[in-house]
Amino acid sequence: MRTPMIDYLHLLLGSVAEDAGEVASYIPELELADPDRLGIAVATLDGEMYAAGDADVEFTIQSISKPFTYALAIADQGLDAVLERIDVEPSGDAFNEISLDRGTGRPRNPMINAGAIAAHALVRGDDAEARAERILDLYSRLAGRRLSIAEDVFESELSTADRNMALAYMLRTVGKLRGDPADVVRGYTRQCSVSVTVRDLARMSAVLAAGGRTPEGDQVFDPAVNRQVLSVMATCGMYNSAGDWLTSVGIPAKSGVAGGLVGVLPGQVGIAVFSPRLDPHGNSTRGVRLFERMNHDLGLHLMAPAESARSVSRRLERDGAAVHEIAGDLHFTEAERVLRGFALEPVGDAPVVVDLDRVHRANDIARRMLLEGIRRLHEDGHDVRIVDPWGVLGSAETGSGELVRGEQAHGGYVPASFPDVASAARA
Amino acid sequence: MRTPMIDYLHLLLGSVAEDAGEVASYIPELELADPDRLGIAVATLDGEMYAAGDADVEFTIQSISKPFTYALAIADQGLDAVLERIDVEPSGDAFNEISLDRGTGRPRNPMINAGAIAAHALVRGDDAEARAERILDLYSRLAGRRLSIAEDVFESELSTADRNMALAYMLRTVGKLRGDPADVVRGYTRQCSVSVTVRDLARMSAVLAAGGRTPEGDQVFDPAVNRQVLSVMATCGMYNSAGDWLTSVGIPAKSGVAGGLVGVLPGQVGIAVFSPRLDPHGNSTRGVRLFERMNHDLGLHLMAPAESARSVSRRLERDGAAVHEIAGDLHFTEAERVLRGFALEPVGDAPVVVDLDRVHRANDIARRMLLEGIRRLHEDGHDVRIVDPWGVLGSAETGSGELVRGEQAHGGYVPASFPDVASAARA
Amino acid sequence: MRTPMIDYLHLLLGSVAEDAGEVASYIPELELADPDRLGIAVATLDGEMYAAGDADVEFTIQSISKPFTYALAIADQGLDAVLERIDVEPSGDAFNEISLDRGTGRPRNPMINAGAIAAHALVRGDDAEARAERILDLYSRLAGRRLSIAEDVFESELSTADRNMALAYMLRTVGKLRGDPADVVRGYTRQCSVSVTVRDLARMSAVLAAGGRTPEGDQVFDPAVNRQVLSVMATCGMYNSAGDWLTSVGIPAKSGVAGGLVGVLPGQVGIAVFSPRLDPHGNSTRGVRLFERMNHDLGLHLMAPAESARSVSRRLERDGAAVHEIAGDLHFTEAERVLRGFALEPVGDAPVVVDLDRVHRANDIARRMLLEGIRRLHEDGHDVRIVDPWGVLGSAETGSGELVRGEQAHGGYVPASFPDVASAARA
Amino acid sequence: MRTPMIDYLHLLLGSVAEDAGEVASYIPELELADPDRLGIAVATLDGEMYAAGDADVEFTIQSISKPFTYALAIADQGLDAVLERIDVEPSGDAFNEISLDRGTGRPRNPMINAGAIAAHALVRGDDAEARAERILDLYSRLAGRRLSIAEDVFESELSTADRNMALAYMLRTVGKLRGDPADVVRGYTRQCSVSVTVRDLARMSAVLAAGGRTPEGDQVFDPAVNRQVLSVMATCGMYNSAGDWLTSVGIPAKSGVAGGLVGVLPGQVGIAVFSPRLDPHGNSTRGVRLFERMNHDLGLHLMAPAESARSVSRRLERDGAAVHEIAGDLHFTEAERVLRGFALEPVGDAPVVVDLDRVHRANDIARRMLLEGIRRLHEDGHDVRIVDPWGVLGSAETGSGELVRGEQAHGGYVPASFPDVASAARA
Repeated sequence: MRTPMIDYLHLLLGSVAEDAGEVASYIPELELADPDRLGIAVATLDGEMYAAGDADVEFTIQSISKPFTYALAIADQGLDAVLERIDVEPSGDAFNEISLDRGTGRPRNPMINAGAIAAHALVRGDDAEARAERILDLYSRLAGRRLSIAEDVFESELSTADRNMALAYMLRTVGKLRGDPADVVRGYTRQCSVSVTVRDLARMSAVLAAGGRTPEGDQVFDPAVNRQVLSVMATCGMYNSAGDWLTSVGIPAKSGVAGGLVGVLPGQVGIAVFSPRLDPHGNSTRGVRLFERMNHDLGLHLMAPAESARSVSRRLERDGAAVHEIAGDLHFTEAERVLRGFALEPVGDAPVVVDLDRVHRANDIARRMLLEGIRRLHEDGHDVRIVDPWGVLGSAETGSGELVRGEQAHGGYVPASFPDVASAARA
Repeated sequence: MRTPMIDYLHLLLGSVAEDAGEVASYIPELELADPDRLGIAVATLDGEMYAAGDADVEFTIQSISKPFTYALAIADQGLDAVLERIDVEPSGDAFNEISLDRGTGRPRNPMINAGAIAAHALVRGDDAEARAERILDLYSRLAGRRLSIAEDVFESELSTADRNMALAYMLRTVGKLRGDPADVVRGYTRQCSVSVTVRDLARMSAVLAAGGRTPEGDQVFDPAVNRQVLSVMATCGMYNSAGDWLTSVGIPAKSGVAGGLVGVLPGQVGIAVFSPRLDPHGNSTRGVRLFERMNHDLGLHLMAPAESARSVSRRLERDGAAVHEIAGDLHFTEAERVLRGFALEPVGDAPVVVDLDRVHRANDIARRMLLEGIRRLHEDGHDVRIVDPWGVLGSAETGSGELVRGEQAHGGYVPASFPDVASAARA
Repeated sequence: MRTPMIDYLHLLLGSVAEDAGEVASYIPELELADPDRLGIAVATLDGEMYAAGDADVEFTIQSISKPFTYALAIADQGLDAVLERIDVEPSGDAFNEISLDRGTGRPRNPMINAGAIAAHALVRGDDAEARAERILDLYSRLAGRRLSIAEDVFESELSTADRNMALAYMLRTVGKLRGDPADVVRGYTRQCSVSVTVRDLARMSAVLAAGGRTPEGDQVFDPAVNRQVLSVMATCGMYNSAGDWLTSVGIPAKSGVAGGLVGVLPGQVGIAVFSPRLDPHGNSTRGVRLFERMNHDLGLHLMAPAESARSVSRRLERDGAAVHEIAGDLHFTEAERVLRGFALEPVGDAPVVVDLDRVHRANDIARRMLLEGIRRLHEDGHDVRIVDPWGVLGSAETGSGELVRGEQAHGGYVPASFPDVASAARA
Repeated sequence: MRTPMIDYLHLLLGSVAEDAGEVASYIPELELADPDRLGIAVATLDGEMYAAGDADVEFTIQSISKPFTYALAIADQGLDAVLERIDVEPSGDAFNEISLDRGTGRPRNPMINAGAIAAHALVRGDDAEARAERILDLYSRLAGRRLSIAEDVFESELSTADRNMALAYMLRTVGKLRGDPADVVRGYTRQCSVSVTVRDLARMSAVLAAGGRTPEGDQVFDPAVNRQVLSVMATCGMYNSAGDWLTSVGIPAKSGVAGGLVGVLPGQVGIAVFSPRLDPHGNSTRGVRLFERMNHDLGLHLMAPAESARSVSRRLERDGAAVHEIAGDLHFTEAERVLRGFALEPVGDAPVVVDLDRVHRANDIARRMLLEGIRRLHEDGHDVRIVDPWGVLGSAETGSGELVRGEQAHGGYVPASFPDVASAARA
C-alpha cells in the first residue's frame, strides 16, 4: 500500500501554491534565494520521515537555531544561570528590537535576537569558532547527519551585523554578556548560518517533541530543559503574534528569515516547512499557512484535548476474584480512574486481580499511583495479583500473568510512593 | 480501599502551610475575607471530584469569570466579531492597566479588565441584569448547581469601580463598546460577584479540559471556542508573568483577586484552589505554589510529552492472513504508525485483518486515516477484514469480529477521506 | 499716519490664504464651524489691540482654557498641592492619551486632557456650575469683557465626553481627583465651552506676557504662578511637537480644537489666531503657519537674544567729579556692567555722580545691585550723588538731580542688599 | 570699589556647602575625581568673567560638549540634513537609553547619547582624529584659549564605551550613521574628553547667550543655528526633567557626568558650575541647586518678563514741530509703541522730529518698523527730521542731529520695509 501521508503532504503544498511577501533582503546573500521554493517534512518520534516538495534544498537555519542553542546554554550553565541573563516573557516588539527589561536589563526572551545572542554567549567555548563548533555538533546530533556552515551566507551576514553588534554591546553594558561583543556576534552569526533542509529541521523538532530524545534513543536534552524550550517557543517563537499563533495554530514553533519554520507537537511530531517569502512579521508566508492548514486538518493543537476517555477500567468477577481489567495508555488522569475502581473494593481478604494486559504505556506518576493503589489493597488484606505482560509497571522481574503480593510489588517496583510524603516534606 | 487522591491533596495543602502576601484591599468587602482559608478541588472530566481543606467556603469568582464570559461572548457574537473588539496578545501590563492597542484601540486580551469588560458587553442581553442573569445561568450550568451573586460584594465593588468605569468609557471612545458604560460596568461587576467554591470552579475548569463538555455530556462550548479560551488562558491568564507561568507550571490558568485560582490540563483535569493572600501580581500566593507543586508531582504540563509510544501495531500471520494488531489510543501520531504497517503490504489479494480489539479510543483524524488506509488496501486488491469490538471506527453496524470489505467500510464509515481533497481545494 | 501694524496683519493673513486639514469632528457642534474663517489679533501689554480678518467671530476656547485654569488652580491650592497631582513634563502622547505617570499616577502635565481635568477639579467651588462660574469670572477679567458659555457646544460636547469621563474616573482611581468624576467632567466641559474671539484671547495672552498683570494694572496672577504657566506652555502646549515648536516658533503657546491658537512672548505681546482646520496633531493648520511667519518676520523667539548691549555706561570727568552716565533698561546684565564701571573707582573721597537720566526701566535685582554699588562707593569714602529723574531707583523722595549720600540712598531705597546675605543663609 | 559680584558668588558657593550624591562611576577615570570640588564662573557677553571656588580646576567636558558639536554639525551639513538624522523632541528616557524613534529611527534629540553620537558623525572630517581636531578647534575658539584632550580619561572611557558602541551600531542599522561605528565612538569619546574649567565653559556659554558671537566679535555660529541649539537645550538639556527644570530654573542648560553644568540666558550671561557629585538623573547635585538659587536671586528666567515698559516715547511740541522723543532699547514691542505715537499725527505738512537721542539699541525688526513709520509720515506730507546720535537706525551717513527727508532715510537705511510685501509673497 502506498501511504496516504505523502499524498496528504502534496495536497498541502498544492493548497498554498499562490504566494505573497518578500524574501528577506537585509542580508545580501539571502536575497539570492529562489523565492518559489517550497518544501515540507514531518518527522515522527521514532524516526519515520515524510517529505514533499523541495525537501532536499539547503538553506540557512537562522533564528530556528535559537531554541536549540538556548537548550545548549541551559545544559552548559544550568537553568538558573540562564534565567538570570535571559527572561522568558513574550515581547510585543519586533524581532530586531532591543527589548531589554528596564529593571533587570535582561532580554525579554531567548527567541528575540538580544536573548539569542546572550544565549549563544552562554554556550561553553573559548571563542566564536569553539562555540560554533559545539553548536554545529549539537545540531548534527539532532539532525542525524553531519551539518555544515554556509560560509558565503556567514560572511554576508557578518558584514551587515550592525544590529546584532549593537545588541551585543548593549548586553555587555547591562552586565548580561561576558566576553568580546564582536566575537560573540561572530559566533552567533556562524550559528545562524548552519545549512539545513526541512528534513533536518523536522528531525530536530521531533527530538523536542520526544522530550529531548532522538529516535535512536539518544537523550540529547534533559526533559526539564526540553520542556523549558518548548514553553518558550509556545509564547515567544513567532515574533509579534504570540497570542494569535497560539490561538490559531496552537503549537510551539519557530521561524527563520531564510524561510524555514518548524513546529513541535509534544509527544507527537516535529514538522518543518520552507518557503522564503516572508510576511511583515518576518515569518514565512506560506509556512504560516501550511501550519494553519495542518492544524485544521490534523487536529494538532495543544489545547485540543483527546476525546474524553471512556472505559479505562472495568471490574469483573472471575473465579471468585475481583478482576480490574485496565485498558489504554495511563497518565495521571487514567490512573485516577483506576484508583477509583480500586476504592470500591471493600476491606477484606478477597483476591484482587489487576489485569494490565491491555495497557501498553504508562508514565511515571501513573505507575506510582497504581503501585500505591496496589499497596493499599494489600494493606486492606487483599491477595493482589498483577497481570502485566507489557511490563508497564516497569520491573523486569514481574512476568506476564504472575501473581504477586502487593507488598512485593511495592518493594520491587518503586522507590517513591504516591502520595509522596518525602517529596511533600521537601517542598 | 481508601483512595490516595485525598491523602495527596491533604499533603499538598500541608506543604503550603506558611503564607505571605496581603488580601486584596481595593474592594472593601474583600478585605473582610479570612486570609487563612485554604481549599483545593480536582475535578475529572467524567465528574469525579476530589477536595480538601476549605472546599465548601464561598468566595467571589472575580477575574476567574473572564474566560467563561469570553466563551459566552464568542458563542453569542461569533469569533470574528469578538476578535474585532478584543485582541488575544499577552500584555506586559498589570491587570488594571488600560492596555488598549494604539493602532486598533482593542484591549490586548480578554483576561485584562479592559478586554473582560468588552467581552461582557458582547454577551447578549438588554441591560446589566439581563446579561448578568445569562452569565449566571451559564456558570451554574458549568458548575452543576445553581449559583448566586454575593450582593454585598457586588455593592461594595460597584461603589469603587472607578477604574472599570474609566476603562468602559475609554472603550466606548475607541469604538469598542456599545451601550452605556455605567450599565456595562454594573453588569460586569455582577459577573465578578458570583459566589463559588473550589468545587464549583474545579468542575467549571474540567468542562474546559473536556473540550467544552460537562461530565453529563452537555456540550456547553463548541470545541473551537473552547480551544480559543484555553489558548488565551495559557498566554494571558496570569497577569504579568505569562512566560514564567508557562515555563514553571505549564497549564492554562486564571486567578481572581478574591484568592481563587483555576488551572486546566486539556483532556485531563480541572483544578481549583482558594487562598486569599495575593502576591504582587495579584495572584493567590499559596495558589501559585500549589500549582507549581502539582506540576512537579503529577507531571501536569502542556509541554511534557507522554512517553514515546512503543508497539502501537504489530503484524502477524494467522491462517494465511496478514493480521495488523493495533493497541492503545489512536491520534494522528499513532494512526501514522498503523499506516506505516499497512504500507508494508505488497499489492495483491492476500487477506488482511485489521484487529482493533486493543484500541479503545480514536479521534476523528485517526479514524479517517485508518479508513483511508483500509480503502487503499482494498484498492490494492486485498480482502480486508476489520475487527472493531469497541466501535472505534465509529459505526454501529460493524460488529466485533465481523469481516467486511474495505469498500463497505469506507462507504459505511466516513464522509471524508484522508487525505481530504475537498478540504484541500477549499482552503 | 496710518499704522503699518494693521497692514502687516493683513499681509500675514493673505500669506496663508490656502488651507488644508479638517475641522474637528469628534464634537458634533464643532463640525458646524465655517472652516474658512481666519482671524488674528495682537495685544500689547499696555492694552493696544491690532486685529485683522474674522477678529470678531466667536468660537469656543476649548484647550486654550487649560493654561488659565491651571493658573487658577495654583492660585486656589498653592503650587505644591497642584504639583502633587499634576506633573509638568512634556508628553510624547497625543492630546487624548491617558498619560498618567506609572509611578506617581500624576498626569504628565496640565496641557493634556488628563492634567487639565485634574486642574479643573482643583479650582475652588462646590460643583460644576460653581467652578465654571469662577472660571468664567477669571476669563472675563483677563479678556476685559464679560464672556459667556456657548450652551449648544457645551451640550454637544458633554454628550460625547466619553474620553474625558474615562480620564476622570482613572484620575480618581489613582487618587488624583476628588469629587464626582461626572461632575468634574461637566465643569471641565463648561470651561472648554467659553465663547471667545481672537481679540479676547490676544488680551488674555497679553496678561500672561505681562507677568500676570492686565493693561489696567490688575495683577491677576502672581508673577511666580505666571512664570509656571508660561514654562509649561513652552514645553507642553503644542501636543506632539514640543521640541519642533520651540525650535521653529520659539514661544509659549496653546491651541484648541475649535481652531484657536495663542502665543505669548514674555514682556512683549500676546497673539491669537483663529482658523478651524486642524493638522494631524490637532493644531490649527493656518494658525501654526501664521506663528512661524511672525516668528520669522518679527524675531519673536525666546532664544533670540537682543543685540548685545553696547555702551550701557560711560565714565566722564565733570567739575572734578567722576560721572557714571548710564543709559538703557537695566536688568542683571546691565547692572553688572554698571558695577564694573564703579569698580574702577580707586578708594578715596573724590565725588562720584551716578547719572540715571537716560535710564527708564530697571528690575528689582538691577536696582539692588546699583544700590549696593552706591553703598560700596560710599564706604570707600566717596561723596556719591545720584541723578534719577525717572525714579528708577524706586523712591519718590529722591528727586531729579538731587545729590544724596550713598548711605542715605541705601537706607532709603532697599530693604535687601546685593549680595543678599539673609537670603543666602535662608536657602 | 570692590565689585559685589564676587562676594555674591562666594555667598552662593557657601549656600551649597553640604552635598549629596555620588561621583560618576561608570568611567573608571571619573571615579578618581575629588568629589568636594566646587567652582563657579559667570561670563558676560562682552567678555567679563566672574569666578569663585575651584574655578581653575580642569575636568572633562563630557555631555556639555553636545550642544556645541550639534551646532558644528548644523554648520557643516545644514539644518535640514541634521534634522533628517536627529529629532528635537524631549525624551522621557534616561541619558543612556536608546531612544530611537520607532517610526523614523531618529534619535529623539541631540542631547541624549544616541543623538550626540549621530551629531558627532555629521561633523566634517575623515576619521575620529580629524573630527576631534576640528571640534577641539571650535571649543578653543569658544573658550578663548587653546584647550586639550585629557588622554587618560579618553583611554578610560573608550575602554568602557560599550553603550556608545551599541548606540553607534544601532544608528548605522537604521541608516542614521555613516562610517565605521567604532571610529565614530572613538571620535565622540575624544570630544567628551576635552579638558575644561568653569571659566572655559562660562565663556563658551556666553557665546551662545550672545547669539553665537564671542566678546571679541567673532560670529562663531549663525544666529539661526544658535537659536536652534538653545531651543534644544531648553527642552532636552537636563535629561529626565525637562519640564521640572524649565519651571524651576527656566534657562537652557546642559550637564555633564564629570560634574559640570552650564546655563545660558539669551542676551544676558553664560554660567558654569562644577561639582562632581551627581543626582540620580546624572546632573551635578550642587550644580542644580546653584542654578535654582541664582534663578531665585537674580531673576534669570526665560519666562520672567522685564517690567512692563512705561514711557517709551513722548510727543512734545517744539519750535512748531511735533517732536517724538523716544527712549530705551527698541525691539518689536517698543517699536510698536513708537508707531502708535506716529499714528496720532494728522495728515499734513507739519514738521515731525524723530528724536532717538535716548535710544541706544534697536534690533532689525524695530529698525524696519521705525523706518516704515518715518516713510509713512513722509508720505502723509510731513517734513520728517531724524535725530539719531547713536546710529541706531544703522547707517553711518546719518549724523547726529542732521535733518533728513523720510524718503532719503528709507532709501538710505533699509532694503526691506515693514510690512514686508516681498517676504509675504515669498512665504
